Amino acid sequence: MTRTIVESRTKTAIIGFDQPFCVIGERINPTGRKLLAAQLEAGDFSTVEKDALEQVACGATMLDVNAGVVYNSNPNPNETEPPLMRQMIELVQGLVDVPLCIDSSVPEALKAGLEACHGRPLVNSVTGEEERLEIVLPLIKKYNVPVVAISNDDTGISEDPEVRFAVAKRIVERAADYGIPAHDIVVDPLVMPIGAMATAGQQVFALVRRLREELKVNTTCGASNVSFGLPNRHGINAAFLPMAIASGMTSAIMNPVRPQEMEAIRAANLLMNNDPHGAAWIRASKPAGAEGETGGRGGREGRRRRRG
Amino acid sequence: MTRTIVESRTKTAIIGFDQPFCVIGERINPTGRKLLAAQLEAGDFSTVEKDALEQVACGATMLDVNAGVVYNSNPNPNETEPPLMRQMIELVQGLVDVPLCIDSSVPEALKAGLEACHGRPLVNSVTGEEERLEIVLPLIKKYNVPVVAISNDDTGISEDPEVRFAVAKRIVERAADYGIPAHDIVVDPLVMPIGAMATAGQQVFALVRRLREELKVNTTCGASNVSFGLPNRHGINAAFLPMAIASGMTSAIMNPVRPQEMEAIRAANLLMNNDPHGAAWIRASKPAGAEGETGGRGGREGRRRRRG
Repeated sequence: MTRTIVESRTKTAIIGFDQPFCVIGERINPTGRKLLAAQLEAGDFSTVEKDALEQVACGATMLDVNAGVVYNSNPNPNETEPPLMRQMIELVQGLVDVPLCIDSSVPEALKAGLEACHGRPLVNSVTGEEERLEIVLPLIKKYNVPVVAISNDDTGISEDPEVRFAVAKRIVERAADYGIPAHDIVVDPLVMPIGAMATAGQQVFALVRRLREELKVNTTCGASNVSFGLPNRHGINAAFLPMAIASGMTSAIMNPVRPQEMEAIRAANLLMNNDPHGAAWIRASKPAGAEGETGGRGGREGRRRRRG
Repeated sequence: MTRTIVESRTKTAIIGFDQPFCVIGERINPTGRKLLAAQLEAGDFSTVEKDALEQVACGATMLDVNAGVVYNSNPNPNETEPPLMRQMIELVQGLVDVPLCIDSSVPEALKAGLEACHGRPLVNSVTGEEERLEIVLPLIKKYNVPVVAISNDDTGISEDPEVRFAVAKRIVERAADYGIPAHDIVVDPLVMPIGAMATAGQQVFALVRRLREELKVNTTCGASNVSFGLPNRHGINAAFLPMAIASGMTSAIMNPVRPQEMEAIRAANLLMNNDPHGAAWIRASKPAGAEGETGGRGGREGRRRRRG
């Protein structure tokens, strides 16, 4: 059985077919968040702190940390990102006890994150691009950590799922050459927006199944991308996630603060027999006030339950 | 491509792998509804009328009609059910234009329904029990209609999915002996409550996939059974349906008046590329007032969207 082990200083999480779905909180990322970018440049980490605490309170299994900000004062990420990554990793692991996911396309930032991070973080990411493979895989081997492998290569992102499968297979093989086992590769088969490509959902479901059955790897995706450009995105995401889970997907990089998506994942865990005795489902379904720490979410579900 | 054709006098619906999920409204059924049973005995059909109109307004593809009431004045369903079935079929098809599903375990009631029903109704159901096969299959052949095949036989309902698959296979083979094609058999693999059997969800997903790939048949189920006995049942059902659809399920007998489950089905249709140009999804996502006939549901989704 494929198991990807990630660890913080005190906590272990397992990504696997027989495990609850691994929710990787995506919020600590200044990409497209101008306010957060400006705060980081000014040395203000209050939003990072809030995002870390809130995502864990909402049920994130791991937190992604991305320091990809372009400073007004210095537009060179090779200079700015490594020290910022170190600082953010230190801050976040001081606040919360979940394992982290070090997210950067800057090799020195990955290194800085790996040096600063306790336990066994997940690295996000390597691609099938030759240069990336040669830079990232030795780091993965050196630090003995798992890595997200994105199914694009030097020719770009293929719309053909056969090509995306082949790229994933090549990354797994290249990793094996470095002595990195398949269970330490978490493949992202790339989720296209269904608004732009109507077959995108079916592609992912079929790819995830093949990746699981043929390559025996865990999988992840940027889940919300599937609904890009469409109305009521949470409704689409909340169906996409259970469908991906039924197809074999084992993690997603997503926003755990959304109750609709998180309820769908808890229900999918229950339906996949990855919630022993339904304990997590029943706990989350308690009405507001029955449990202090889940009051907000419990309240929403309590109301829904009474409506039924 | 497997296609089960059902028809009312004026409307055709297709159950198939490349079609929007077929929602068979379950409400017109006095089983467990004491008030409705009493009304029917008194000749009051107001609840039947309301249930017919409401289910179609909420998006039901077909309506199930069950006349299985036990009268206080006459406890013999062989006498009471056939005339009541005829009356209910005539009433419902006079009110709404969707195809119907004639639901009874009383052979004379099936006959009465088949005689009264316009178009090409679905018959619900035959099982693998020898006596049922011999009674129901000739009716199916004579009226040239499709039938729901429930995967239990004279030994009862097996907890072993291999046995349930074998029973379904035998029904399909027996139907073929009568000249009934596989595309007119809609298999119900039987959904157990996950509260009683933790593997029930996984069993159904695997069975539906095999029924589709090996027997090439459409499938259905009593969807809400999966959540029996657990809190926040709508949350479980709303994840179960997309997961079953991703596994290949093509219809369900369910309550279409529940917005959470119906939204999940619309999203699953979109994600399976069975909602051309996302038209149904976009229409249902319009805020309240933008469209008269979907005001109630649109309003709910409009609020959710603005929250995002």
